[in-house]
Amino acid sequence: MINSIKEFLIGKSLRTEQLKSERFNIFWGLPILSSDAISSVAYAGQEILYILVPAVGFMAFTDMIHAVLMVILLLFILVFSYRQVIDCYPKGGGAYIVAQDNLGITPSLIAAAALCIDYILTVAVSISAGTAAITSAFPHLLPYNVTICIILIILMTIGNLRGISESAKVFAIPPYLFISIMIIMIVYGFVKYNIMGIHPKPIYKVPNFTNTLSFLVFLKAFAAGCTALTGVEAVSNGIPNFKEPSQKNAKIVLLLLGCVALVLFGGISYLSTIYKAVYNPDVTVIAQVAIQVFGKGFMFYIVQTFTALILIMAANTSYNGFPLLLSIIAKDGYVPRQFSKRGSRLSYSNGIIFLSLTAIVLLVYFKGDNHSLLPLYAVGVFVSFTLAQTGMVLKWLRNKDGAWKHKALINAIGAILSFSTTIVLSITKFKEGAWLVCILIPILVFIMWRIKAHYNIVADELKLNLSQKPKCIDYKKQKNYMIIPIDSLNKSFLKSYNYAEAFTKDIIVFHVSIDEEATKKLLDSWKEYGMQVPIVVRRSPYRNLIGPLVKFIESEEFTVTPGDTITVIMPQLVVKKWWENVLHNQTSLFIRSTLLKRRNIALVTLPYIISK
Amino acid sequence: MINSIKEFLIGKSLRTEQLKSERFNIFWGLPILSSDAISSVAYAGQEILYILVPAVGFMAFTDMIHAVLMVILLLFILVFSYRQVIDCYPKGGGAYIVAQDNLGITPSLIAAAALCIDYILTVAVSISAGTAAITSAFPHLLPYNVTICIILIILMTIGNLRGISESAKVFAIPPYLFISIMIIMIVYGFVKYNIMGIHPKPIYKVPNFTNTLSFLVFLKAFAAGCTALTGVEAVSNGIPNFKEPSQKNAKIVLLLLGCVALVLFGGISYLSTIYKAVYNPDVTVIAQVAIQVFGKGFMFYIVQTFTALILIMAANTSYNGFPLLLSIIAKDGYVPRQFSKRGSRLSYSNGIIFLSLTAIVLLVYFKGDNHSLLPLYAVGVFVSFTLAQTGMVLKWLRNKDGAWKHKALINAIGAILSFSTTIVLSITKFKEGAWLVCILIPILVFIMWRIKAHYNIVADELKLNLSQKPKCIDYKKQKNYMIIPIDSLNKSFLKSYNYAEAFTKDIIVFHVSIDEEATKKLLDSWKEYGMQVPIVVRRSPYRNLIGPLVKFIESEEFTVTPGDTITVIMPQLVVKKWWENVLHNQTSLFIRSTLLKRRNIALVTLPYIISK
Repeated sequence: MINSIKEFLIGKSLRTEQLKSERFNIFWGLPILSSDAISSVAYAGQEILYILVPAVGFMAFTDMIHAVLMVILLLFILVFSYRQVIDCYPKGGGAYIVAQDNLGITPSLIAAAALCIDYILTVAVSISAGTAAITSAFPHLLPYNVTICIILIILMTIGNLRGISESAKVFAIPPYLFISIMIIMIVYGFVKYNIMGIHPKPIYKVPNFTNTLSFLVFLKAFAAGCTALTGVEAVSNGIPNFKEPSQKNAKIVLLLLGCVALVLFGGISYLSTIYKAVYNPDVTVIAQVAIQVFGKGFMFYIVQTFTALILIMAANTSYNGFPLLLSIIAKDGYVPRQFSKRGSRLSYSNGIIFLSLTAIVLLVYFKGDNHSLLPLYAVGVFVSFTLAQTGMVLKWLRNKDGAWKHKALINAIGAILSFSTTIVLSITKFKEGAWLVCILIPILVFIMWRIKAHYNIVADELKLNLSQKPKCIDYKKQKNYMIIPIDSLNKSFLKSYNYAEAFTKDIIVFHVSIDEEATKKLLDSWKEYGMQVPIVVRRSPYRNLIGPLVKFIESEEFTVTPGDTITVIMPQLVVKKWWENVLHNQTSLFIRSTLLKRRNIALVTLPYIISK
Repeated sequence: MINSIKEFLIGKSLRTEQLKSERFNIFWGLPILSSDAISSVAYAGQEILYILVPAVGFMAFTDMIHAVLMVILLLFILVFSYRQVIDCYPKGGGAYIVAQDNLGITPSLIAAAALCIDYILTVAVSISAGTAAITSAFPHLLPYNVTICIILIILMTIGNLRGISESAKVFAIPPYLFISIMIIMIVYGFVKYNIMGIHPKPIYKVPNFTNTLSFLVFLKAFAAGCTALTGVEAVSNGIPNFKEPSQKNAKIVLLLLGCVALVLFGGISYLSTIYKAVYNPDVTVIAQVAIQVFGKGFMFYIVQTFTALILIMAANTSYNGFPLLLSIIAKDGYVPRQFSKRGSRLSYSNGIIFLSLTAIVLLVYFKGDNHSLLPLYAVGVFVSFTLAQTGMVLKWLRNKDGAWKHKALINAIGAILSFSTTIVLSITKFKEGAWLVCILIPILVFIMWRIKAHYNIVADELKLNLSQKPKCIDYKKQKNYMIIPIDSLNKSFLKSYNYAEAFTKDIIVFHVSIDEEATKKLLDSWKEYGMQVPIVVRRSPYRNLIGPLVKFIESEEFTVTPGDTITVIMPQLVVKKWWENVLHNQTSLFIRSTLLKRRNIALVTLPYIISK
């Protein structure tokens, strides 16, 4: 049953060899890996206006352009810096791998933690922004925004569990639709305002004071705009997802991404300034611009639909990046190994599910409010940018091959700008939420160290030397005790007893007496059936079933030499329906967990299947 | 650690033999088993006024007395009926036992379901009313009422897990304090009004219209007052909790209960009529009376404190009755067997914890509002009254011993009145919540039947006949295969291998290959260590670890005759800290649950302890 539901939802299992064919070319790769960066125009511009309008009033629409230009400049520097990363690290892994290679373990873990946080935030932020686009068009859905967010995440989870290639086909169209409609809006908006000379009244009141822009406010506006830059890392992390030549394809996609972002972010910001859009919690800036340009008709709903779609698909960038990154870290042993295993559809199922769950928690906690999630965003990704670029600079300085001076300079500029931006982001957004990220990164690094340390200890203890060959023990001298706890003489006990007889002559039947009557009944039937083995009875005045058994095993009367293993046989009733399990096997669960803490005990579970 | 917390909270373990000394005499038994009935004066009168005041206006204060008298009359009929139950059923069990004995299984299960529902409601209703007494005195605590309820339940749970005798001493004083303060208030209130002639103005506006009382409204008022009658069953259920002569003691307590309820319910209702108290969601009727009688000074707070205390202790009636009833039903196999086991302090721990959890759920759902919980209340208990009294009538008619005609008449009156009251309660309170109880009772009866049916099937399948003696199998002919799955050659595998070698020569080492490289590494080290047994390798293109193993066991190449049991050895890493478990043993959990569904498989769990 569960298997067929699973198959219906995520499709038939795929063979490991089918992995190669599940990759993108440039046409599919661009929309899938860049939708994060491209979609952020839907909220980045709005956040800039949120800072500027109350601070400088009408001047906001002039100053906005400066902030946007700064962001775009930074984007291109990052694009060129990361193209060099792609050149050097064909297997992907981005900041984590680069930092590990050039800066050491701790910096790489910092990058890993920062990236993980930002991948999760990408999902939460994009989904909440997508929902905002929906509720801007249909205001009566506003009270259900959290529910909408959760439904969207569940759909996305299912899609991604089906595997990367199929998700490509599902998720690649919306970005292209969004890019097209945005270009149409930008061109028509420009023509309408400048050539046809139509200047509609702003929808919301624009403050009619003007102030000079202070440096701090400008930094804040710039920081708000930096949320548009989070998608760059995704491309260099995702190189193994590209078809051969994967490095070349990734580099082209990265450059295309920069160009698309330039056109859209620049164009829409320009439209916001001429059509005087302002921040409003219920109607997004894009929605306001669309109403001004197209009127509240068919085209407005098309814009909102495509905006919602690309934002939802932007979350998909994380579904490609996060599980892949996590699998790389898991192979190094810094997160639980389960994250390194591919599911039946060749996707890293555990990583996908983990991502969905944490994003849902965030969305529920922040009540699906995009605006309150954004201050947490982008700090992490700039930490990883800084580490990756610094690592690259060190790499060039160490190797000094080819045009290394020129390349080191590009990465150095990238590193310095990323670092400065990290500082700006942390300070300007600290109170609103960035503090949480600043605390979380060291905590995650600590946890990752602990996990690695534990895996190391286990590996050490399990390691075999050539001297420890299995032949050196003399089995003939060993006593092979098997203990069968008995409650009443029934078929399940008989199965255990037969099993034990097949292996050893040293059988001990052990009964813990809580109720005198029951014990008497047991001993009577024991006699009646003519069982050959004596039964050991221990009273338990405190009604504890495990204590007397453990005490018996440890007692001198039960003579075991140190090397011996004692086998305890526990029958287990296997029932047909899940709820029937509540009615059985409670005690044996406790016995299991107590006995398994002892080195010299083996526990045999013998299923007794209730067929009806 | 957990053990010492447990010991700190609930005390040292008690021996089963200490059970006898954990019983009440009359002095302790009265307050503990009757606090439910006595405490209900704190809300029963108020509910009557809630019905009457809006319906008949000023006349409410006259009509109330009639309703109260009806309730008290019914109480005494039930007291005498139940004294006869105590005579006939010295081991307790009340309606469930009586119905089972005289009416058959289904009626007894109906009684059981009805009683269980009402025990849970007693906790919820009493705790919420107690909290209302607290918030009437300290209105700024009103927003935290649910939290207060939950804290109170947790304290009560701990107290009861410590065992019945100790809880007696903790919980017996408040009822006596409440009885005393109520008698003082009744006497002083009477004197103040009638002899000193002081007639204070009502605190809340009393409607100044008068209406004639319709029959339906009177029935509603009577139904509202019937919540005062739920405590009677507790005494006859609780006979085994009394010291010898337990029947006589229980009968005396039951009669005393009737007398105390008569004085308090009558007296306080009288005070409410002369001091013109009305229903108010924030200030209870008792609080209004206390203010009128004593003024809002020291004595007012004493009244509120003692009222809160007895209400909280009333919930304790359920903590004595519910787990005991559940243990009786569990011994018959209609609820999970765990409920029949005494905990380390001789209380039925599972029943206590279950009661607390369900009551908390109710309180959270109804936001701790006493008034909205009350319509659900009392229906269940009157269903059980009806069944118990009907059963008693049949018993007298069947046995015809002693003064059976006289006794049958008493029980018949009890039965008829209980049945009529059940109908009145169901109809008048149906819309407000009684419908839920009417649905729940059949559902619970169905579930109990299913559980019993399941236990019967299991018992049938496990039952041994004398012909099935263990000797009839020839173990020499059996092959004793042991399969050891291997992932990599390490100490844990070696332990499994040594264990298997000690028991059999038929060892199969089985490897599922997911990753070619890892398999090659394993086979190399296998050669290097010079292992004698061949290793069986199966590829798993779909990365499924269990499928190939199951397929191998079923395949012809692995020849097993039908009777053979195949032993699969699963090493399990035992780690020191709980969180480390997340990092291991995930796969073996899946393997366990799949393999244990097969009749011919035994699973050996071999702990490998990581000591660091």
